[in-house]
Order: sequence, then structure tokens, then C-alpha cells
Amino acid sequence: MQEIIRPLARQTPSKIVLLVLDGLGGLPHPETGRTELETASKPNLDRLAKLGVCGLSVPVGPGITPGSAPGHTAIFGYDPLRVNIGRGVLEAIGIDFPIQQGDVLARGNFCTVDKQGNVTDRRAGRISTELNASLCPLLEMKIEDVRVFTAPVREHRFVIAFRGPGLAPDVTESDPQREGIPPATVNALTRASGKMARIASRFAEKAKAVLAEKRPANMVLMRGFSKKPDIASMKEIYQLKPAAIAAYPMYRGLARLVGMEVLPTGATFEDEIETLRKNWKKYDFFFVHVKKLDSAGEDGDFARKAKGIGEIDSAIPEIVKLNPDTIVVTGDHSTPAVLKGHSWHPVPTLLYSKYCRPDNAQEFSESACLQGGLGAFPATHIMPLAMANALKLNKYGA
Amino acid sequence: MQEIIRPLARQTPSKIVLLVLDGLGGLPHPETGRTELETASKPNLDRLAKLGVCGLSVPVGPGITPGSAPGHTAIFGYDPLRVNIGRGVLEAIGIDFPIQQGDVLARGNFCTVDKQGNVTDRRAGRISTELNASLCPLLEMKIEDVRVFTAPVREHRFVIAFRGPGLAPDVTESDPQREGIPPATVNALTRASGKMARIASRFAEKAKAVLAEKRPANMVLMRGFSKKPDIASMKEIYQLKPAAIAAYPMYRGLARLVGMEVLPTGATFEDEIETLRKNWKKYDFFFVHVKKLDSAGEDGDFARKAKGIGEIDSAIPEIVKLNPDTIVVTGDHSTPAVLKGHSWHPVPTLLYSKYCRPDNAQEFSESACLQGGLGAFPATHIMPLAMANALKLNKYGA
Repeated sequence: MQEIIRPLARQTPSKIVLLVLDGLGGLPHPETGRTELETASKPNLDRLAKLGVCGLSVPVGPGITPGSAPGHTAIFGYDPLRVNIGRGVLEAIGIDFPIQQGDVLARGNFCTVDKQGNVTDRRAGRISTELNASLCPLLEMKIEDVRVFTAPVREHRFVIAFRGPGLAPDVTESDPQREGIPPATVNALTRASGKMARIASRFAEKAKAVLAEKRPANMVLMRGFSKKPDIASMKEIYQLKPAAIAAYPMYRGLARLVGMEVLPTGATFEDEIETLRKNWKKYDFFFVHVKKLDSAGEDGDFARKAKGIGEIDSAIPEIVKLNPDTIVVTGDHSTPAVLKGHSWHPVPTLLYSKYCRPDNAQEFSESACLQGGLGAFPATHIMPLAMANALKLNKYGA
Repeated sequence: MQEIIRPLARQTPSKIVLLVLDGLGGLPHPETGRTELETASKPNLDRLAKLGVCGLSVPVGPGITPGSAPGHTAIFGYDPLRVNIGRGVLEAIGIDFPIQQGDVLARGNFCTVDKQGNVTDRRAGRISTELNASLCPLLEMKIEDVRVFTAPVREHRFVIAFRGPGLAPDVTESDPQREGIPPATVNALTRASGKMARIASRFAEKAKAVLAEKRPANMVLMRGFSKKPDIASMKEIYQLKPAAIAAYPMYRGLARLVGMEVLPTGATFEDEIETLRKNWKKYDFFFVHVKKLDSAGEDGDFARKAKGIGEIDSAIPEIVKLNPDTIVVTGDHSTPAVLKGHSWHPVPTLLYSKYCRPDNAQEFSESACLQGGLGAFPATHIMPLAMANALKLNKYGA
């Protein structure tokens, strides 16, 4: 898709708003038969759906439950099966860690182990970010010719960067995923990653020694070994000047990875809209990320998710008032409250512009989107459609 | 697709009519909310839609606005992203220019330049085709070991063929796309195309000298440098004996490129139908091309486009009377009057045969096609579906 789009993209004054409501899609409440979105009061989203064109986007593939990274890369127009962004890279980018070419990044958890070395708390009682920050420097070291850097994220989470020659990220994780057993050995998954496995294992040993007296944070677990993917920026592909408005580090990190400028913003959707308004003239593409629906879904809190949709809806007119040429409202995946987690279900998506062909979707809901003009479609189509509707794509072929 | 179809195709007496209404798809009129097709009186197309199966074909990809060439190659079953047909080749084929293997073709425009060499009219006041024909021979020449041939097309447009060893078509165009500046230099885009760029630049200089006293046609512009693509014919792929009925040179050229026999015909749809009737027994596949809807759309003339659809509809019974086994009515792209140009919107498509499974499309319109049994589908599926419905495909696999 990107190879086709790239030579066609043109810079124009028209503006695109891509509103990603994390975990938007849902499933019916067992008592009412209506999903979170169908339960919410959302007159403004309904109006956009009626005027625009709707559909259900498939983030990765049929039956595939996406993590946040593939969910977002797909929306940004990158094939999520080719662009693999590891958790370690994501964490690092989200805190502005200065990644260098060749670094292998891992997500670290401080954890608690007992005298036998068995994990008793995978999150070390969620120690304070301050304690985390005071422990991280103890873990900076040199192993063979590899330097190990660390940086605190939040509570028990921190970033580990391995910097040195010949490191490949294809290794297993040391987080055993449950308590009562010791951390797992880091093993190489490919011939090239033998050194990385050895260094990571040595790091775990040394960390255990360094942290011996630091209970509850007396050990570390490592997950998501990864390198920064080598991908073209949205500026290069789409000729856009893109900005990201996201309160959560991971989404800022994802946006930075594809070359968006990350704007400082407050924690609420209202703060984000205010950031959008203040920066309206400076960019032609805005990725606005809202986290709270996903959190409510993960907590299994159907009512809170429905209420959250209503709150977001109230602020939609503020976006419409800015008069964007294209507005897309979608999610990176579904997070049905009944499943208490991400799911594989296609995501309700609406696209509004002056040039939408009318369809039968008269409101914004899973069932209405099923009748929409976009049908069920890969999420990687969102960007080409948004670009076309903002008249930012030249004709293909003579 | 072709790789699957090719071994399955079989020759049968059954007949297929592929009616391509150029630029068929539209967008709602702001006052009525109805598209051109939804505004037109078209009882015969509605009847076919009701009896047949409908859908919306996507010529190239989501958000991609196709030129005429990819729009048609897709309908003929060739992947429009692989088969790249340049404007120069198209123009040449459309006038029956005898292309030889290795020729680089360009589309030439006679234009007017002032004393400073700036373009004052990119079309030289649309000089007569006769004047064009008298000027073309002046431009035939030899540059190094390359022979340059020319042939008039219409008004200010002509074909330039560069014939000689080592010519690659990857060069920039000399048409500056606006007036008030000189023609652009032809530059090589790849290492292999250095010679072509040099020859084209030399040709431009010589043409300027030769045409110095021929104002308004005192200079030439070059576009669409290209070579004939190396593709299998429709005969080879589908085992068809295909004929093309098209009044416009470009579409005759496209048809010839995929191996159709191009039948001489008059300018109106009635003429084309007469040609169809006269040749009915001689071929088993007829591509019938109608240009006028696209022209009306490009002119932004909603009413003329809607009226044109009505006129085409009146002649549909003449096709039905011939009793084809499969009738397909589609377009190569949408040309909504409100956009005054080609667009990315999927194209209303109907397929009629004795073996269609009924669907909810009760008339031929964008909104009805959205309810159709074919759904939204790549235009490259049209030929396999047409072949299947004419019982021209064997079973796949044991």
C-alpha cells in the first residue's frame, strides 16, 4: 500500500484528524444485547456517522487480537505483519530514551523473589516511581563489550538498553508470567542471538547481586527484547506534517516512531482538544489518542466504558468546529468489557469528509458500521482513504 | 489471479459482453442527495441489476484515483499495480502506430513559446489536426544512432517514437505543467536512462529550431515516456476471441495491448451497438466502451452525465436481444460531477447471467450496489466472474 501511495501523495493545506479511541469496539451486554458504543449517548458521533461513511476495520487479520503497537501501526498505514515493534522499543521511545542504531531494548520489571529465588511478586508491590528511579542507576554496567543502560518508566517498570556489537533481539523473556517459580533463563531463538542471550543472563545474575538487599525490589524480569524497526516516516510516505496528541507514553512513542511530532498535552480529552486547537495551524495531520475506553474495557467495567464514550462525544463538536477536511474516528482494536481485554473483533470506524458517498449507517455503532459503505476492511486502508478524502492523493497512472 | 485462471479457461460458444461506462460512479448532488446514476432514468439497467448480481468494484486500491489505463487493465484482469502502461504507449497504440520492440514512446504537445522561450500556451491554441499532420514530418530526424518518428493524434497532440539501442524510459517530462516558464529539461531518473534523457533534450532543441517560424506551434512538450509492457494476451489467458468496440483511440489502444481485435465503429453508442450486432457471431467476448459519462463528469455537468446514463439505458435492450451469456456493466473509475475529475470511489457494477445468485440490489445505483451480492471487490475479479458465469472455467483441483 505504501509503495503505491508514496509517489501519489501531495502536500495541500487540507487537514486530517485521526481520532483513535483505544479499545473502542465492544460486545453486547448480556442483559441489554447492546454493546458499550450502542449503550452510550453519542449524538455527535452519530451525526458524523450519518453524514460520513462507516465500516469495520480489521487491525491485523481475522481472529487476530492486536496489541497496541500493531493496532496503531496498521492505522498509520504500516503493515503490522511486517513492522514489528517490540515492547522494549515502545517503552524506551515513550520516555524519550535516546535509542542508538543497534541497541537492543527490553522492558524491565522490578520484582520480588524469596530466598529460594522464586518470584513472589512480579511487580515488586508496584514500588514508587521514585524508588525505581533510585534503583535504576545501580543496574548500569558493562558486560563483556556491551554497555547496559537503564531508565525508570513508572512504578516497577523500567527500560533496559543493551548497546554493543553483534546483539540480535531474538531471545526468550525472563518473566515467568506467574509467581512461585524462578525467573526464566533467557535463551537464544536464533543463531545470531546467542550473544544477546548470554549478556541478558549475565545481567540478570548481576542485578540479583546488586539488588540483594533492596527487597521488595530485589530482582528484575525482562520482556520484549527488540530493536527499533527501520521504517519510512509518515512525512516521507504521505507528505504530511503530522502531530500526535496523546497523554500516554506508549502512544507518544508509537507516534514518534513513525515520525510524528509529539505535542505536550494534559491528561484529559478536553486537554487534548485544547492542544489540538492551539496547534491547528501548524500541522496538517493530527493523531489524537484517547486511552480511557480501553482501560475501562480491560477492567471489565461496561458502564464506565459506555459513559466514557458519552464524555468523548460531548467534545466532538470542538473538533468539528475546527473544520477538518477529513475526520476519522476509529480504535486500534476492540476491548469488550465482557472479555476484560483486547479482542479480535473488527473496530467501528467512521470517516467524514465533503466527498463521502452516503451509506446506510445512520449512527455510530457496531451494527450500523456493518451496514456501512466501507464494509469490513483492513485498518491499513484508513490512511489512503483519509488522504483521498482530503484530496491529498494524485491520480494513479495515465 | 491470472495464474489461477489460465489453466482453467476453456473455449466455449458462450458469449460475454463487457460494457464499460467510463467514469460511471458518482457522488450525490448537494441538493437532491442522489448521485448521477441515482438521478438518471434507467429502467433497463435497473432490470438487469434486479435479475443479476451487483457490487462495487475497486479499480486499483482504497483511496486510489485511477487513470484510464489502470482502470481498464484491472477490468481486463491484469493487476494494475504490475502492468504499467505509459501515456506515450497509449497514444501510440490508439493511432495504430507500429511500435517496435525497444521503442520509447512519448506523448508530444505542440505548444507556443515567447521570445524568451517561456511557454505561453501549452496546447498551441489547440491547432487543427491538419496543421499538426503537416508539422509532424518536420520533426522526424536522426540523433546519434536514434531515429525519431512522429505521428499526429488530434489537435495539438502527437506521438514521438525514439528507436535505437539502449533507450530506457525512466526520464522526467518536459511539460512544465504551467505557463510562463520554459519547458523543463528532460532528466534521467535511473542510470540506464541517461541516453534517453540526452536524446530527448537534443530533440527538444532541434524541434525548437525547426518550428521557429511556425507560431503558434513553435515548440513541443513531451510527456509519458514509456515502453510497451510485456504481458500475455486475453486470448492466452482466457482462451477468448475478444473484440473491442470503442470510439476513442486510447481505449482502442488499451484493448489492442491486451490482444483484442479492434473493430471499426462510429462515434455514438448506437453505432457501437450496431458494430456489436454485426460482429456478434465472430467473437465470444466484446468490450464496449462508452466515453461520454466521463466527459460530462470531468466538465462538472451533473445533468448531462445523468442524461447520458438515460441515453445509454435506452440502448441496453439491443444488447439483451443478442442474448449474451454474461453481461457486465461497470466503469473504469468514478468521475463525480461534484469533483470534476476521476475519483477513488468504488464503481457500481452489475453482472447478469442465467446463473446469478439473487441479492438485495433491486436497481442499478451506488447505494443499491452497496447491498449487492458482490460486495466491494477488486476490479480484477470482474473477468473471472464473467468467465465463470459464461461457464468458461473448469474446476480447480481434483
